[in-house]
Amino acid sequence: MTDKLTIIGTPVSPYVRKVLAVLDMKAVPFRCIPQVPFLGDENFTRISPLRRVPVMQIGDFTLPDSTAIVQYLDEAHPETMAYPGDIRDRARARWFEEYADDHLGRNVLFKLFFQRVVRPRIFKEEPDEAIVAEALEGDLPRALDYLEGEVPDEGFLAGDLSAGDIIIATLMKNALWAGWQLDADRWPRFAAWLARVNATPSVSKVNALADEVVNANPKEQMVILRRYFGKA
Amino acid sequence: MTDKLTIIGTPVSPYVRKVLAVLDMKAVPFRCIPQVPFLGDENFTRISPLRRVPVMQIGDFTLPDSTAIVQYLDEAHPETMAYPGDIRDRARARWFEEYADDHLGRNVLFKLFFQRVVRPRIFKEEPDEAIVAEALEGDLPRALDYLEGEVPDEGFLAGDLSAGDIIIATLMKNALWAGWQLDADRWPRFAAWLARVNATPSVSKVNALADEVVNANPKEQMVILRRYFGKA
Repeated sequence: MTDKLTIIGTPVSPYVRKVLAVLDMKAVPFRCIPQVPFLGDENFTRISPLRRVPVMQIGDFTLPDSTAIVQYLDEAHPETMAYPGDIRDRARARWFEEYADDHLGRNVLFKLFFQRVVRPRIFKEEPDEAIVAEALEGDLPRALDYLEGEVPDEGFLAGDLSAGDIIIATLMKNALWAGWQLDADRWPRFAAWLARVNATPSVSKVNALADEVVNANPKEQMVILRRYFGKA
Repeated sequence: MTDKLTIIGTPVSPYVRKVLAVLDMKAVPFRCIPQVPFLGDENFTRISPLRRVPVMQIGDFTLPDSTAIVQYLDEAHPETMAYPGDIRDRARARWFEEYADDHLGRNVLFKLFFQRVVRPRIFKEEPDEAIVAEALEGDLPRALDYLEGEVPDEGFLAGDLSAGDIIIATLMKNALWAGWQLDADRWPRFAAWLARVNATPSVSKVNALADEVVNANPKEQMVILRRYFGKA
């Protein structure tokens, strides 16, 4: 039982949902413990030095980064791949994943989500609307301008569906919760690509899960997770 | 000639030197154009959307992230690997690389180096010593406490020498330039591990290169690069 694959982290996090979508694609059984990163104690810092989610645990093997987890899953469970087969496509997929994880996610959308959703709800504080405006009017439109030029007319960012597509789609869900709306007239190619990603079975599933967990407490999240993914 | 592997970015950057060390380990011929990230024009933003270095170019294939570059190099030139063979060791190596790239590098050491070296030299401004003190007295000691508990008594962070070891060593060089000194009494295991990494042939080579390029202009850097790596 100790060697069961466990994902620690609330699926309200787009990084957790990226990993859940990949586990679903690969049909790998897992359990998910919906830890809230901001509220973790010292034990959480021990397994996640940067206090981020998700953390993967298999027995005493611990891995505290969503990208490292997805790459591990591709090597341990290669039947359905989260990165394309061609090595240049794989490299491009990793670039888009890094761009999304770090820049679009941590520096743009997560700030927005933190201000508009986490601060009021968890910390009972008002959002800093100057930070929100900077994201909505500056950083996010610039990122969408970039992605509008990169997404293809058909298919995905780097050929096959990859972790690079999935993380952008899961991040956009958090942006929607924070009051952002996608202007499909301004970014039509991006909007069409996002609809394609959201229509894939595993992303569609974690998006539906997301809308249920966002207003639930950790105990309710556990029940919802089991309904979507069974009891591992 | 257009399909020659080109690295764009000054070797003053620890991320550029990580890639140069890996290319050296693999004996892959390359040329390096010592672009300064802060000074790039619109053409640079086109190939590196986050205006970071290094960027790899092979013909019209462009890859603007050091970790994606190293992973590409491992797949395209697998003779000498930059990640260990065991999949759990590989995963841990990637975690340490992410920890170093993002947290230790971008949030701690590069801030220090930017304040103490880049601001005075490039922008003719005084460093913000409050930021410097926060790094030297808070963030950096905390990171070293963490790494002190992770480095092994012998060998490297994840078994064989990996990109995870290399990037921490190249980052520490930039910290030394910014006036940091390693307290080997406080962090003895880290100090011994760092000495082992610095003694490996390719890291030793990029460290020696680093000390020559740090005070050189881009044209002089080109000459120094050719002396170390030949003319690709």
